[in-house]
Amino acid sequence: MNRATPHTLGAIALRFELELRGGDPSLAIDGVDTLVKAGPTRIGFLANPRYRAQLADATAAAIVLRNGDADACPRACLIAPDPYVAFAKIAALFERMPASTPGIHPSAVVASGARVAAGASVGPLCVIEDDAVIDDGAVLGPHCMIGRGCVVGAQSRLVARVTLVQDVRLGRRVLIHPGAVLGADGFGIALEKDHWIKVPQLGGVIVGDDCEIGANTTIDRGALGDTVLEDDVRLDNQIQIAHNVRIGAHSALAGCAAVAGSASIGRYCLIGGGAGILGHLSLADRVTVTAMSLVTHSIREPGEYSSGTPIQPNRLWRRNAARFKHLDEIARRVSAANKEPES
Amino acid sequence: MNRATPHTLGAIALRFELELRGGDPSLAIDGVDTLVKAGPTRIGFLANPRYRAQLADATAAAIVLRNGDADACPRACLIAPDPYVAFAKIAALFERMPASTPGIHPSAVVASGARVAAGASVGPLCVIEDDAVIDDGAVLGPHCMIGRGCVVGAQSRLVARVTLVQDVRLGRRVLIHPGAVLGADGFGIALEKDHWIKVPQLGGVIVGDDCEIGANTTIDRGALGDTVLEDDVRLDNQIQIAHNVRIGAHSALAGCAAVAGSASIGRYCLIGGGAGILGHLSLADRVTVTAMSLVTHSIREPGEYSSGTPIQPNRLWRRNAARFKHLDEIARRVSAANKEPES
Amino acid sequence: MNRATPHTLGAIALRFELELRGGDPSLAIDGVDTLVKAGPTRIGFLANPRYRAQLADATAAAIVLRNGDADACPRACLIAPDPYVAFAKIAALFERMPASTPGIHPSAVVASGARVAAGASVGPLCVIEDDAVIDDGAVLGPHCMIGRGCVVGAQSRLVARVTLVQDVRLGRRVLIHPGAVLGADGFGIALEKDHWIKVPQLGGVIVGDDCEIGANTTIDRGALGDTVLEDDVRLDNQIQIAHNVRIGAHSALAGCAAVAGSASIGRYCLIGGGAGILGHLSLADRVTVTAMSLVTHSIREPGEYSSGTPIQPNRLWRRNAARFKHLDEIARRVSAANKEPES
Repeated sequence: MNRATPHTLGAIALRFELELRGGDPSLAIDGVDTLVKAGPTRIGFLANPRYRAQLADATAAAIVLRNGDADACPRACLIAPDPYVAFAKIAALFERMPASTPGIHPSAVVASGARVAAGASVGPLCVIEDDAVIDDGAVLGPHCMIGRGCVVGAQSRLVARVTLVQDVRLGRRVLIHPGAVLGADGFGIALEKDHWIKVPQLGGVIVGDDCEIGANTTIDRGALGDTVLEDDVRLDNQIQIAHNVRIGAHSALAGCAAVAGSASIGRYCLIGGGAGILGHLSLADRVTVTAMSLVTHSIREPGEYSSGTPIQPNRLWRRNAARFKHLDEIARRVSAANKEPES
Repeated sequence: MNRATPHTLGAIALRFELELRGGDPSLAIDGVDTLVKAGPTRIGFLANPRYRAQLADATAAAIVLRNGDADACPRACLIAPDPYVAFAKIAALFERMPASTPGIHPSAVVASGARVAAGASVGPLCVIEDDAVIDDGAVLGPHCMIGRGCVVGAQSRLVARVTLVQDVRLGRRVLIHPGAVLGADGFGIALEKDHWIKVPQLGGVIVGDDCEIGANTTIDRGALGDTVLEDDVRLDNQIQIAHNVRIGAHSALAGCAAVAGSASIGRYCLIGGGAGILGHLSLADRVTVTAMSLVTHSIREPGEYSSGTPIQPNRLWRRNAARFKHLDEIARRVSAANKEPES
Repeated sequence: MNRATPHTLGAIALRFELELRGGDPSLAIDGVDTLVKAGPTRIGFLANPRYRAQLADATAAAIVLRNGDADACPRACLIAPDPYVAFAKIAALFERMPASTPGIHPSAVVASGARVAAGASVGPLCVIEDDAVIDDGAVLGPHCMIGRGCVVGAQSRLVARVTLVQDVRLGRRVLIHPGAVLGADGFGIALEKDHWIKVPQLGGVIVGDDCEIGANTTIDRGALGDTVLEDDVRLDNQIQIAHNVRIGAHSALAGCAAVAGSASIGRYCLIGGGAGILGHLSLADRVTVTAMSLVTHSIREPGEYSSGTPIQPNRLWRRNAARFKHLDEIARRVSAANKEPES
């Protein structure tokens, strides 16, 4: 799947400061692959110990692995303290990035009050509104919409069909995947007697450097003040970030997670897929929430948190779930029995 | 974040029928902000009693609050029976709405059989198909797609990149955020021996007046008959409304909620974020479902409903969750013990 | 809602091999509808026994039903072994499909290195990049984006605003609804000391023949190797399929379901709405997962699986949920009591 490139095994080892054990340093490498699939011109890797047994059948040019796994490896080794990180860097050499020549595609609609840097690339059928700024080296793929008051920072890349509605400021090297919508109105409504009044959403969205935002993810603008992602926040697909949320640097959220309004997530947090965090809560740094858990109160201590019940055959689950409806009564009976053990 | 506007404190009080207590009625107000941040030319508000202590440090031109909180306020007060509603109305004065001059942007592709009112605005790169109608005062932002047989009612606004696939009829003053898809086929499949047959989806979507629909929300067309949102329904982002669902007037659904086919939700219902409602169920008026709960049977009484388990440190949760798998057995033992307490 | 068409009752019976019992074979039929609503020129159906009582009031030209229900039917009958399947086929006669004349709309932006078959139809404002292939009879609605190395198979239809980012290969007769994104980067990140490194995503997406993919659904490209949907997989709206997932033929996933990276789902599986499947798990063929359940371990036996707790009035639920936090302790007490029953 990768094109031939002029990287040699030795040059790769040198570049990423890996020890090459065995193998011909002058061997040309033309790609990377899994431990099982990598052939004699590609580099494979072993990061997860459970796949160690696959080493025996490996045919890769070399395998990135920990020192402790080298003995079991019949091929050349690239010794790395963290093989997954090393592999990620090597793989990046073989990534085919989309061509992006600077300039504005003739089919794009750019308002006269927008500012597009000479070194930026604006793809076909993009719309850029007044007071928007596209910084140097930024790349907008097809069908992007950059609304009023938005800034796309230097070297940022909006892959395709990304919408920045209004007052969204992206840092540098931000990567956003198709279908993402940043800066739409937060969900602010107030009941006036018998009908809803819309609460105007006047804030913006601030996204720090090196953030990545997945496909069809939504990040609403603040009601008053801004919704904020600090540097190096990583969001997967289909995530919902409500107005005035703040996410600390280096936190990562898996697909379909949702964070309600004004919640604040610390740094280095890991939020599992489909997990939910209620509004106005605070999570400390280094909090992990497992998949599909619902956080209903603030969490002040780092650590892993969960809710829910285990998966079971439906027939068994039905019986247990029916009992859950009376768990308080069950517990009362147990307490009563225990308080009067001999009665 | 707001531009200077020529509103005075006295004019605002008069307009929204609020009592101005203290302060200079001729003072020019240039925006709104939170209680903590609003400076001497802005209006703040206190709606949630838990923030009452912040009054002491307020520096706002005036603060919207309940009569009972006025004594604790060191600044001018705007007395309101419902401060959040009053604030919403004041804030609307300072909202910068996108410019939308009537007319069709030259880059839009409008079929000859479409009907666009003279007072409507069609933004860049929109596509409007035959038999679509855009009523007077409607505004379509960039990249909208209005399919055959769709109607965009008067004064409705599709912010950007909204797709109305087919037979979608919007009422007046409907607001739809980017990425929303209305009128896609419902999920209708029938297993014919060993493979699926698609069940044609022939109905439409009807959206009442004053509805709001969030970013990347989807509302499918009916299989037979229509999917219906009555007036003043409010949907947040990433919501899924399946075919033939009916949502009663003034109900509000938070982000990532999902309603399965042919379910019927009453009026003034509140559905929490990520909550699910199974197909063919009915919910009475004024039912509240808390976040991430799953409704598996019809609900005939108003009130608040929940499912799920509380968030806990994973180590504790694991133990409890493991026990849930045997809850029926535990309950049987408790019952047995209680029936024969002295045995 | 359907236009008049020249189908007669007799011709319909003949075409789909249904026994017509009663009724005039030469009667012109102009549409289909529900059992209750179908009038004297339309065909209704009865598939779900719970609606049997509605037969008494039916006014349809004929009703599709099982032989066993024919006695209770006051109208003409079309006898079918599976009435829902038969109805789906009849309904398809009356579906108004969008016009799609072959050719490329002048507003589309098609790279010189793309290959569009003469019999394919490319709608307004589409973007087709180099090395993309659009096969014969394929139809792209407005605003579609087909990236490098993508293939749209013969007779496939992308309704509108579908994005195939890169290296996505669709089979024949694939149907994709608006807002879907296929081929975006999988969520691959590795922590290098104190910050994230992006793991390049180098694989593609392969979609078999006759698959259907719902609105705003996302399917990521593989990290190494491909993400695969086998033939006749049916995905509803708002679904997230992570990198390197494999879904077996004829499986169907309801709205908002999510499958994490490298999970493998068997054939003929049914995944309920909002259900989640963790990464690297395997599900056997014919596994059913009920709505909003979370699968946390591989499932090797066919059958129905569930997690979660039942919906309850919040006041009761709170008490039970509070007890869940101490369920292990409760169970220990019960065990202790049972082991020493007479103590």
